[in-house]
Amino acid sequence: MKKVAIMTSGGDAPGMNACLRAAVRGAVYHGVEIYGIYRGYDGMIEGDIVKMDSHSVSNIIQKGGTILKSARSEEFKTKEGRKKAYEQLKILGIEGLITIGGDGTFTGAKIFFDEFGIPTVGAPGTIDNDLYGTDYTIGFDTAVNTALGAIDKIRDTADSHNRLFFIEVMGRDSGYIAIRSGIGGGAELVMVPETSTSIKEVISTLQEGWARHKTSSIVVVAEGDEEGNAMEIAEKVKKEISQKDVKVSILGHIQRGGSPSAQDRILASRLGLGAIEGLIKGEKNVMAGIINDKLVYTSFEDSITKNKPLNQELIHMVKVLSV
Amino acid sequence: MKKVAIMTSGGDAPGMNACLRAAVRGAVYHGVEIYGIYRGYDGMIEGDIVKMDSHSVSNIIQKGGTILKSARSEEFKTKEGRKKAYEQLKILGIEGLITIGGDGTFTGAKIFFDEFGIPTVGAPGTIDNDLYGTDYTIGFDTAVNTALGAIDKIRDTADSHNRLFFIEVMGRDSGYIAIRSGIGGGAELVMVPETSTSIKEVISTLQEGWARHKTSSIVVVAEGDEEGNAMEIAEKVKKEISQKDVKVSILGHIQRGGSPSAQDRILASRLGLGAIEGLIKGEKNVMAGIINDKLVYTSFEDSITKNKPLNQELIHMVKVLSV
Amino acid sequence: MKKVAIMTSGGDAPGMNACLRAAVRGAVYHGVEIYGIYRGYDGMIEGDIVKMDSHSVSNIIQKGGTILKSARSEEFKTKEGRKKAYEQLKILGIEGLITIGGDGTFTGAKIFFDEFGIPTVGAPGTIDNDLYGTDYTIGFDTAVNTALGAIDKIRDTADSHNRLFFIEVMGRDSGYIAIRSGIGGGAELVMVPETSTSIKEVISTLQEGWARHKTSSIVVVAEGDEEGNAMEIAEKVKKEISQKDVKVSILGHIQRGGSPSAQDRILASRLGLGAIEGLIKGEKNVMAGIINDKLVYTSFEDSITKNKPLNQELIHMVKVLSV
Amino acid sequence: MKKVAIMTSGGDAPGMNACLRAAVRGAVYHGVEIYGIYRGYDGMIEGDIVKMDSHSVSNIIQKGGTILKSARSEEFKTKEGRKKAYEQLKILGIEGLITIGGDGTFTGAKIFFDEFGIPTVGAPGTIDNDLYGTDYTIGFDTAVNTALGAIDKIRDTADSHNRLFFIEVMGRDSGYIAIRSGIGGGAELVMVPETSTSIKEVISTLQEGWARHKTSSIVVVAEGDEEGNAMEIAEKVKKEISQKDVKVSILGHIQRGGSPSAQDRILASRLGLGAIEGLIKGEKNVMAGIINDKLVYTSFEDSITKNKPLNQELIHMVKVLSV
Repeated sequence: MKKVAIMTSGGDAPGMNACLRAAVRGAVYHGVEIYGIYRGYDGMIEGDIVKMDSHSVSNIIQKGGTILKSARSEEFKTKEGRKKAYEQLKILGIEGLITIGGDGTFTGAKIFFDEFGIPTVGAPGTIDNDLYGTDYTIGFDTAVNTALGAIDKIRDTADSHNRLFFIEVMGRDSGYIAIRSGIGGGAELVMVPETSTSIKEVISTLQEGWARHKTSSIVVVAEGDEEGNAMEIAEKVKKEISQKDVKVSILGHIQRGGSPSAQDRILASRLGLGAIEGLIKGEKNVMAGIINDKLVYTSFEDSITKNKPLNQELIHMVKVLSV
Repeated sequence: MKKVAIMTSGGDAPGMNACLRAAVRGAVYHGVEIYGIYRGYDGMIEGDIVKMDSHSVSNIIQKGGTILKSARSEEFKTKEGRKKAYEQLKILGIEGLITIGGDGTFTGAKIFFDEFGIPTVGAPGTIDNDLYGTDYTIGFDTAVNTALGAIDKIRDTADSHNRLFFIEVMGRDSGYIAIRSGIGGGAELVMVPETSTSIKEVISTLQEGWARHKTSSIVVVAEGDEEGNAMEIAEKVKKEISQKDVKVSILGHIQRGGSPSAQDRILASRLGLGAIEGLIKGEKNVMAGIINDKLVYTSFEDSITKNKPLNQELIHMVKVLSV
Repeated sequence: MKKVAIMTSGGDAPGMNACLRAAVRGAVYHGVEIYGIYRGYDGMIEGDIVKMDSHSVSNIIQKGGTILKSARSEEFKTKEGRKKAYEQLKILGIEGLITIGGDGTFTGAKIFFDEFGIPTVGAPGTIDNDLYGTDYTIGFDTAVNTALGAIDKIRDTADSHNRLFFIEVMGRDSGYIAIRSGIGGGAELVMVPETSTSIKEVISTLQEGWARHKTSSIVVVAEGDEEGNAMEIAEKVKKEISQKDVKVSILGHIQRGGSPSAQDRILASRLGLGAIEGLIKGEKNVMAGIINDKLVYTSFEDSITKNKPLNQELIHMVKVLSV
Repeated sequence: MKKVAIMTSGGDAPGMNACLRAAVRGAVYHGVEIYGIYRGYDGMIEGDIVKMDSHSVSNIIQKGGTILKSARSEEFKTKEGRKKAYEQLKILGIEGLITIGGDGTFTGAKIFFDEFGIPTVGAPGTIDNDLYGTDYTIGFDTAVNTALGAIDKIRDTADSHNRLFFIEVMGRDSGYIAIRSGIGGGAELVMVPETSTSIKEVISTLQEGWARHKTSSIVVVAEGDEEGNAMEIAEKVKKEISQKDVKVSILGHIQRGGSPSAQDRILASRLGLGAIEGLIKGEKNVMAGIINDKLVYTSFEDSITKNKPLNQELIHMVKVLSV
């Protein structure tokens, strides 16, 4: 492996820069040339690719976002688009590819590998933590801490006014961010897609709390919950509980940015290094991940299709801790 | 002045606890008994009042929210309600009152003073900074820094994806938080109620930026802007600019909480001390404030009715700095 | 198990309050009475013990420090001291004990159990992460993030002035905090007790960096490194490299405090619950820990005497990443 | 004024980048060419100067440190050094100079102006806030908040262990940072060079606090205090109070870095703009500052020599608030 290229794609996540930095420096360390592709698959198609060295990634370990930018490419979904992309890589003599992103990125990477055979190793960069093959994804710990910081601030105002707050966090179809920020934020209740909580149960849980003299309450809602988003759930609840002051807060895109936490910088560095060293050792069509503190490689197929269930112990904890 | 009472009321703001602490310790220092009223005017009406001492306010200087809680009282708006409140104060022999809050609090305080004559000194506790009689209100600096922190995080993701973001901040009818967090966050444009910016101007400003090769843009919108809130403005803009990825983020209640900044802890301490020392010196029906670094007292009437204009220099700065 | 007591002891760590909260609420949930002992073993000896309920631990999950206070008891090291302590527990009818602390705490707990047989389950509360029987200790993640935040700030000034900075972090005899904050902070070199790095190697590593045009450098030093502390190492290096501006920063006690991170709040909650549920299920003379995401119980003996080696992969990473 | 140059010099301060950004964009806005000088006066002597435009300062408003780097130049103190520097500016046709720094920077600027007559406007960039001609200097608010954050963390551990902590903050010969972070951190006592506090007074103040049942205490010490630094003061106190656990923490260089606060970004932007617009309007040999919210220009001579006294009201507050 003498020449590789690297890109960041899909939703951005804090730690992508740290991952990029580790892959680039790992390449330099092992004497491999490395090129950075701007704006994900769109940049690959357009040939928006530059040579990188140690200095290209100086001082980015603490930065959120990604210096290579990111995009969700429509053109790459077509055969012609992918052919163009392959031509660009061939021109430069690229022999291996590192893709940092989520399942959209890996879906594209898998198809691209099947069609053109360029060895590809991925690194899981997404705040949702919903990729199989790694205990945690790059950006997850930071997003949880960001959500938690916001919940801590909202609690101040909920407590001052004896309010009921519904706080919506990201996660697409998973409750990972919700369950951890909910437990950490002392939430009364956490509503996630992985479990079914009816509006009836929400109201009775809250009323039991008020009967025990709790004055303010926080309910954390994962954006993909089956009862709807925070706004919809709050509306349904308000109809039944007219006497309480009910507010909604949608944390939104602050969860995607910010300086990565210690855990994310280290995870990202391990995976960036794992990706380049994996390519060098002959890995292909796989995603690098850390499971039980060990570096492992999982097929793109499995990482996208297999399910990584939510720890049920955590769901049970919310109930006990809000007694 | 031998016995006074203190309360926090209206929307809560970071620093209210620091203000309360300074007033209580100032009272102890001067040998005056001080009672804390829970939940604002509602607590006054119900007699939910406890004696406080130095120890009651230990370790609260860094806490957001208010340990005395807050409320917006409907009953206090009635003559009967205010009579009940007065009776409660008379029972305890309260000779003076300190009210920490915003203009709603001072409106009530003024009427109460006119009716019953209990000397009252207020301290401006509100994140909106829209009270005349003080350069800054308690909670404003913290709210601006909170909004700024959120904008910094959103910028990471805006830059990664070349997006246009509309970020809504609080402020009721003023643009104070918007203009400062907008400048600090490097916003392309800041939309505030104090100036008129049409959708046409918004679009042309953004397009000029894109012509100068800016890829991502941030527009900060004060919730009271005349063109609508961030969601409404984003909708109007999307109709004209179809090619850009447009997102909206409503920062919401995180702006009301959190540990107060250094500036807010010091301002709150000066004003809490200024309030109790003002009462002792014979001030009444006034709000304590800091103007040009000096403690001043302004009538409740003026603090509520007079206008504190936005610094036009700051509005001009947004334009120059986004060149 | 009808009555248990809980205490925090040794050096304090962020997350101890969250652990206490989970144990108390777990006890309430399971119908077990729980008493809080102030100031560790000293409070046990003095009978400084109070009954606790759900409300006793409201709003403490986000607080650093410990509401039960902590102490390092000299008297408990004596047979008489421990006898007095036992008498106090007998008076109250305490049948089980939860001790949150480090190896000093567990050493005492083990001896106490051997002498008097009160079932005891410990939870690892220490920022050093040097306890066998758990992947991470409560307070570790927060301390690493605190050290990292400080390193990020120091880097700003190091880069502005092309300086060489030696930054000392805590850890007693282990390099856990150093290696993680070092990698996360982009350190040139990390000096830990677990590996031997001579001053000669320090200087040649730095000089290679300067030859590659690095202008500023950061070296993280664990307080227990064999070459000495940061001040001593800096002195030795200054003698050889006269032309460079060398500074030292000892991060100190900020690493012990602050609001616990998301990871610490969740770990602490799992272990607090694991401790009380362990006692109820008949565990004794053990420490609750999380290994590979599973709750496990390890004898106090093993937790104190067995070694938990530093991940060598991390040490190798520092070298590759500073290429 | 068609061509100007700008530099950052002396100790670095958070906000220097924001100031640079505003000056550069102000220059572009007014059609003036602007050049950036690296490493202060050393870079001026070496001709390490590059042309800057709007894009050069993108995304730096939130960064600590300075992208132009800084240095304390020995060579500029010599006549030959300054002649070389002048020659470099002449080659490029530089007609005006903006110097961001502290009194060392302005001392050099004043002499340079007297010798060669290039109009120079300075902007006060230093965390010490000891420059006359401006209420606050760029970097001060951030440094105070950084010190305050550290004190908050140390308080957690002080309270857990009933300790006495001496915390040393920066400030050179002034007590600005100490008094504000001390008040904000609820310190028992603040020792600053501007007032004389004997060890006897320190001990009696602390003992009065312990008599009132305070268990932990925090004393903030400005590095320039007349009784010595924190370590020396702690030693003197330990001799008299043997029973108390006494610790020292020297906050050090974290106070120089980090992302600038909202206040610093706005102050820096106003002063950067004020500097370039001042040059354009004919100002020379002056420092731009903000006094009572208005932009003013003060001679370098006055800014360096005149004294800006500490607000005595703040010193009195420490005493009242720790009652």
